[in-house]
Amino acid sequence: MTTQVTAFRWVPPFAQGYVRDLRVRWALEEAGLPYEAVLIDGATQASADYRAWQPFGQVPAYRDAGVEMFESGAIVLHLAEGSEALAPRDAAGRARVTAWVLAALNSIEPFAQAQIHFGAFDPANAWAAAKFAQTQALLDSRLAALSAWLEGKDHLEGRFTAADLILTTVLRELVDNGTLGRFPVLAAYRERCEARPAFGRAMAAQLSTFRENAPA
Amino acid sequence: MTTQVTAFRWVPPFAQGYVRDLRVRWALEEAGLPYEAVLIDGATQASADYRAWQPFGQVPAYRDAGVEMFESGAIVLHLAEGSEALAPRDAAGRARVTAWVLAALNSIEPFAQAQIHFGAFDPANAWAAAKFAQTQALLDSRLAALSAWLEGKDHLEGRFTAADLILTTVLRELVDNGTLGRFPVLAAYRERCEARPAFGRAMAAQLSTFRENAPA
Repeated sequence: MTTQVTAFRWVPPFAQGYVRDLRVRWALEEAGLPYEAVLIDGATQASADYRAWQPFGQVPAYRDAGVEMFESGAIVLHLAEGSEALAPRDAAGRARVTAWVLAALNSIEPFAQAQIHFGAFDPANAWAAAKFAQTQALLDSRLAALSAWLEGKDHLEGRFTAADLILTTVLRELVDNGTLGRFPVLAAYRERCEARPAFGRAMAAQLSTFRENAPA
Repeated sequence: MTTQVTAFRWVPPFAQGYVRDLRVRWALEEAGLPYEAVLIDGATQASADYRAWQPFGQVPAYRDAGVEMFESGAIVLHLAEGSEALAPRDAAGRARVTAWVLAALNSIEPFAQAQIHFGAFDPANAWAAAKFAQTQALLDSRLAALSAWLEGKDHLEGRFTAADLILTTVLRELVDNGTLGRFPVLAAYRERCEARPAFGRAMAAQLSTFRENAPA
């Protein structure tokens, strides 16, 4: 069977290029594996059939000849198990990739999203301003630690892996609000990873779907 | 070598029983693997030596004869690879475990933490109240989907796995603020998982360290 990845038929412009099937498309492109995008919309998301495949109604869900699963980070870890393009073959090297994938998704992304989510407030609202400063400080301390780790390195662990792929998709959420620009090591790292041809192909695939299905 | 897991020497009462080395201790107990807790404090967290092991200065960090790594979710996935007590041996079953571990840590925990983090506000502060309602609604929709999945089941995937372990540690953060009580299926699931002897041993180990090292 052809590997299947679910993706949205269309999303508003602000979300285009950020929907999480991008992670899986990118990993499949790095691994040189063909796939079919299964397009869904809001009605599909709510259906019992889709919930049996993706319990939260999100994208991406995934299936190949051997597995049926969901969660972009988990799918990328599954692909990394099967492809040297995404992770070294030895247990020690694979453990490093797993560690960084989880760090990106549980120790960095939640702080990035909190900071984005709580960004728009009236500066006269002291409680909101204090909470925002708190989320910003937490995020900055994680990014500073990450920057210290990446200083002088091209990749997290000696070569491009699935961990760089996932981390890049987290860091790119922080470009538009100016956060990443304050961390030049991280900004350069993100650009280096996004310059990979496989990233370009994954992005083009997501965006072309949205163009083809744009509302009239 | 003895497997090593880092843990705090002492934390304030509100954090006792919630520090994330609990996840790794629990997994090691389920797998029947002996380990040594390496106790650290704030000075250790900031040191270059510790940052080489745990780049963000957090606990737990982990090493065994084969790997050196960090991030509680990643360590539990590594242990699950090596132990049938934590995951089935076939690729299809392991993929389900990976999917649910990532779902707990990236699709549920960030919403739980946002809801906790933004809980204490002056009700007269309309912006804060609206944001809180928004985090609550997001969290509730995830918990409702999870409850629908677990309805009539003892575990996420037919038997206890590392995914139930991780999800339980996320859900237990939602007991004190009353959220979990509104989802009886999830509340019963959490109790069922926490009733496992291995959970009890892990919890006792974390708490006894704090008792022994309590400030005078």
